[in-house]
Amino acid sequence: MSSKVDDDQAAYPKVRADVIEAATRVFSRQGYHAASMAEVAGELGIRKASLYHHVRKKEDLLFAIHDKMIDELIAGTMEISSSSRSPEEKLRGVIHVTMGFIARNSDGVTVFLAERQMVAGQRWQAIVVKRDLYEKMVTQIVADGIEAGKFVQMPPAIAARALLGMVNWGYTWFHGDGALSADEVADIFTAIALQGLEAR
Amino acid sequence: MSSKVDDDQAAYPKVRADVIEAATRVFSRQGYHAASMAEVAGELGIRKASLYHHVRKKEDLLFAIHDKMIDELIAGTMEISSSSRSPEEKLRGVIHVTMGFIARNSDGVTVFLAERQMVAGQRWQAIVVKRDLYEKMVTQIVADGIEAGKFVQMPPAIAARALLGMVNWGYTWFHGDGALSADEVADIFTAIALQGLEAR
Repeated sequence: MSSKVDDDQAAYPKVRADVIEAATRVFSRQGYHAASMAEVAGELGIRKASLYHHVRKKEDLLFAIHDKMIDELIAGTMEISSSSRSPEEKLRGVIHVTMGFIARNSDGVTVFLAERQMVAGQRWQAIVVKRDLYEKMVTQIVADGIEAGKFVQMPPAIAARALLGMVNWGYTWFHGDGALSADEVADIFTAIALQGLEAR
Repeated sequence: MSSKVDDDQAAYPKVRADVIEAATRVFSRQGYHAASMAEVAGELGIRKASLYHHVRKKEDLLFAIHDKMIDELIAGTMEISSSSRSPEEKLRGVIHVTMGFIARNSDGVTVFLAERQMVAGQRWQAIVVKRDLYEKMVTQIVADGIEAGKFVQMPPAIAARALLGMVNWGYTWFHGDGALSADEVADIFTAIALQGLEAR
């Protein structure tokens, strides 16, 4: 999809992960627009010229942040959806994986949602393809549960979006500093979701 | 809270509503940073100098957009929460009001979530106070349902956030161009939520 970026990642795998993490922190702290490449370099403790050795422009960092986040979420979801678990157990797993993802990446999610209109063209298409894959996996779990007679009849894509919203909205309020851990919140969400979808 | 803005709104109620609507469209189309006051004036079909008669800077528009949106949501929610309906009927009402709000204001919600770090200081505090009021009303409905033995025992604030997320996340995918109307989606979400919270 975006072979230049993939080539860069292959050429500098270790450094690029550091760069992405530093950029995520800087963008989240100051906003994408206000942040400069110099500040990202400063966060890494390297010179700006060295940063430009790995990244040509700020937009590259924005894309790399999105791409890394989504890959991580997809990998976790795919492991669950391709397992032999029941639809109920798969839903439980997906809610826990996504809530954990939100808890670990709330900075990255904030940047993603705040700035996604800045990632243009082919790169945006690559992200949409991956996001759709994630949503389709969740929708398929709901559809399987309906077909197995475990979940109540309803449009699976809408039910999936209810579940995704429940969990994804956590980026606006869950910062890991409350009384409950990500897993405890995920347990409550799972209880609501499984009872809410259950066929009677 | 922000009496200067309130004074402006009282002085130019008609024009300000137009300005807010035009600014919402322009910001949503081009992004807040890329949009100019000249473009907002152009959208209104007035001169930039005339626009400055009503608004001193772009940040004023951002605040006015947030404030109008939240006032609308609060008014609808308050009408429901202060009624004599059962907790179940109140939840149904709140889900419908919020989903309708999302459907009508997806542009405004996009701007709000994308740019909220730009609304600073006292104005941000004013928005947080209103947002907390909205969330508290929803949490209270859940708490009342638990106390009445209708809803299952769980932390009401977490259950409320599950419901708010389900509906609010609609801003990312519900644009009124799919097979289902906002009310039809709200019916499905209500069915999941009420069954999901029901005490057995």
